[in-house]
Amino acid sequence: MTSVLPTAPAMTAQERMLAAQTASRQIGLLDDDRKRRLLLAIADAIDADADAIVAANSADLDRGRVNGLAEGLQDRLRLDAARIGALSGAVREIADLPDPVGRTLDQRTLANGVALTKVTVPFGVVGTIYEARPNVTVDIAALALRSGNAVVLRGGTAAEQTNAALVAAMRAALAAQGVDPEAIQTVDEFGRAGAHALMNARGIVDVLVPRGSAELIETVVTQSTVPVIETGAGVVHIVLDESAPLEWAREIVVNAKVQRPSVCNSVETVLVHRGAAERLIPAVTAALQERGVTVHGDPAVAALADSIVPATEDDWSTEYLTLDVSMRVVDDLDGALEHIRRYSTHHTESIITEDDVSAERFLAEVDSAVVMANASTRFTDGGAFGFGAEVGISTQKLHARGPMGLSELTSSKWLVRGAGQVRP
Amino acid sequence: MTSVLPTAPAMTAQERMLAAQTASRQIGLLDDDRKRRLLLAIADAIDADADAIVAANSADLDRGRVNGLAEGLQDRLRLDAARIGALSGAVREIADLPDPVGRTLDQRTLANGVALTKVTVPFGVVGTIYEARPNVTVDIAALALRSGNAVVLRGGTAAEQTNAALVAAMRAALAAQGVDPEAIQTVDEFGRAGAHALMNARGIVDVLVPRGSAELIETVVTQSTVPVIETGAGVVHIVLDESAPLEWAREIVVNAKVQRPSVCNSVETVLVHRGAAERLIPAVTAALQERGVTVHGDPAVAALADSIVPATEDDWSTEYLTLDVSMRVVDDLDGALEHIRRYSTHHTESIITEDDVSAERFLAEVDSAVVMANASTRFTDGGAFGFGAEVGISTQKLHARGPMGLSELTSSKWLVRGAGQVRP
Repeated sequence: MTSVLPTAPAMTAQERMLAAQTASRQIGLLDDDRKRRLLLAIADAIDADADAIVAANSADLDRGRVNGLAEGLQDRLRLDAARIGALSGAVREIADLPDPVGRTLDQRTLANGVALTKVTVPFGVVGTIYEARPNVTVDIAALALRSGNAVVLRGGTAAEQTNAALVAAMRAALAAQGVDPEAIQTVDEFGRAGAHALMNARGIVDVLVPRGSAELIETVVTQSTVPVIETGAGVVHIVLDESAPLEWAREIVVNAKVQRPSVCNSVETVLVHRGAAERLIPAVTAALQERGVTVHGDPAVAALADSIVPATEDDWSTEYLTLDVSMRVVDDLDGALEHIRRYSTHHTESIITEDDVSAERFLAEVDSAVVMANASTRFTDGGAFGFGAEVGISTQKLHARGPMGLSELTSSKWLVRGAGQVRP
Repeated sequence: MTSVLPTAPAMTAQERMLAAQTASRQIGLLDDDRKRRLLLAIADAIDADADAIVAANSADLDRGRVNGLAEGLQDRLRLDAARIGALSGAVREIADLPDPVGRTLDQRTLANGVALTKVTVPFGVVGTIYEARPNVTVDIAALALRSGNAVVLRGGTAAEQTNAALVAAMRAALAAQGVDPEAIQTVDEFGRAGAHALMNARGIVDVLVPRGSAELIETVVTQSTVPVIETGAGVVHIVLDESAPLEWAREIVVNAKVQRPSVCNSVETVLVHRGAAERLIPAVTAALQERGVTVHGDPAVAALADSIVPATEDDWSTEYLTLDVSMRVVDDLDGALEHIRRYSTHHTESIITEDDVSAERFLAEVDSAVVMANASTRFTDGGAFGFGAEVGISTQKLHARGPMGLSELTSSKWLVRGAGQVRP
């Protein structure tokens, strides 16, 4: 077991963040191999501290039970030996990813000989506000360090002791590697004041990534003066076009709903072209119902299938995250596009069609991070996209859109090399 | 003179922005040639409406004189035939730039055959809040439309009638081209309420670019819930390293200060390595003073040159924008880096040196949008960088950093093309 280096208790939230900023300058200059070894040391430290981490987690869980924490949230919070092994394994995978820093994005030489190079650089300090999921603590710290950033964490209060044990293990690993441990900070002990300080740390924290419920994200987006990358909710649509092959329609809708209903890329609403309703709806709803899905349908759907729960207006904007799906018949592709404009959260939408014109129109006109033709919405994922890791899925348009990998935790700067040139 | 199409007076600020959002869908799908012709039509309309625009501008100027508008601001506000020609000329130059939309940023094929393409797309609706400079009205509208975006403008109250005339001319040109004129909106008539509506139009306006004083930018950054691109002030530094050649030092410092002192890329502070102070300071200060520059120096500078105004603590963080410069002797490169960390606005810094190690360390360690060795800071400019146009110079790290061209007014989306694949 590594020696646990506690965070200095006398520091204010502001002082902690300033210490992270100072440490970020060292981290930002580390080369690829140093950063890789740093992450491997963090993975080892988490494994070595497993007992202490499980003990801290038990204390959080005991408190959660007393405070009536919901069963599902208790499960997300729980760490055992196997889950700790998964945490350190994820850190080792991030260690092996290519360094996103120092890539050349643009290169030009002016007529006067001045050479311009635009290169990727770390942001500096990455902040994150999230809920009681200890895996986020380790994931985000590893992703931030791998991309040369310091990190300031603010996790859910229900995971406070677990997070403190994880942070202590990771900081000890940094110190043992000769790196300033202040590069990993938490403002958990400061409660709401810590979150408030983090959201207002303009000039210290360079970017803030909220992860969690729509409500948490909305709070951060509206209150933060630090630039935010919004990782949003997914009211995800699949459109079954007039020419949709039955087999693709059925398999893709079932996969997108059933494979992992609790995640943001699972489908919530299926829109069926009126010209295909009779052909597709009975078979698709039956396949869903066989897998335990409740179908909330409009009257046109109910007329074609059994056991349809009448859909209400609220259904169209609901991210169920459960074995529920809403289904509606639309007059045509325009009707589908209009429904999507109104209710989509701009995450992922897919059309199932054999008509190339419809497919390309859908790809061009739908204003979402990921727009698909003839594929399951479940592919919207950093892992599936081949990024090797995922910071989150951005539903905003600034800086990052869609699955975010390590590259999205970098900024850029212009390096200009001259030989005495002045501007005429 | 084209017929002037007034903005519908009965619409609220919110309704105007929603109309811009609807229009953005049409603009976003226009091809390169349509957008180019649209801008040429706008340039023609501005020329054709010159008399009406000058008349509106005279009314603004009369009101400005009555209200005691400062001479410098009156000059920025003033439009005459020549300046209107410059406005329309700028639009024609933007028309001829390459289309930033539809470029492929990334392309991958998954093992299962699903094809991923990341392409540039317009943001949708670009908002801007700026001061009483009518050229910004036309510039930003042209840049936004060229990149496939609708635009919502909120200019300074002192330019209200001028902006109304310019917007009317541009909207008439859109309508004549068969494009929804709601793609160019102003919320000027709503005063502060218009600015407030714009800053809170999350989900309607995709990005907000404030242009103007540090105070205006600070207000927008802290109050807006729409994502902001900060175009910031420049407390720009030049470091004269121990090995700096006298000629380069003198020519670059003079160019960076004197050529156009009122802009953000002009130098404000010169830091001189102690080992080069005696060799460089007398000649560099004399050259500056010959051109009318007041040098605010620390005691070490004053000991080596005549007519030095004692520098105060405030000088180090002042963006003069005038023929003033501050100058300080630092012990070494570390001392220069520390000063820059403390006082820089992260816009542009340059080192003058013959020592490659110093140059590369400076390029790596200075955390600014543009970092230079042996070149004038005046090169930080979209035009000088070869972008053909400039939206502003971003001093933030998210999305855009440094001079912003048309590309920085685009976002991206992932297009996914499959043949029925589902996630295993």
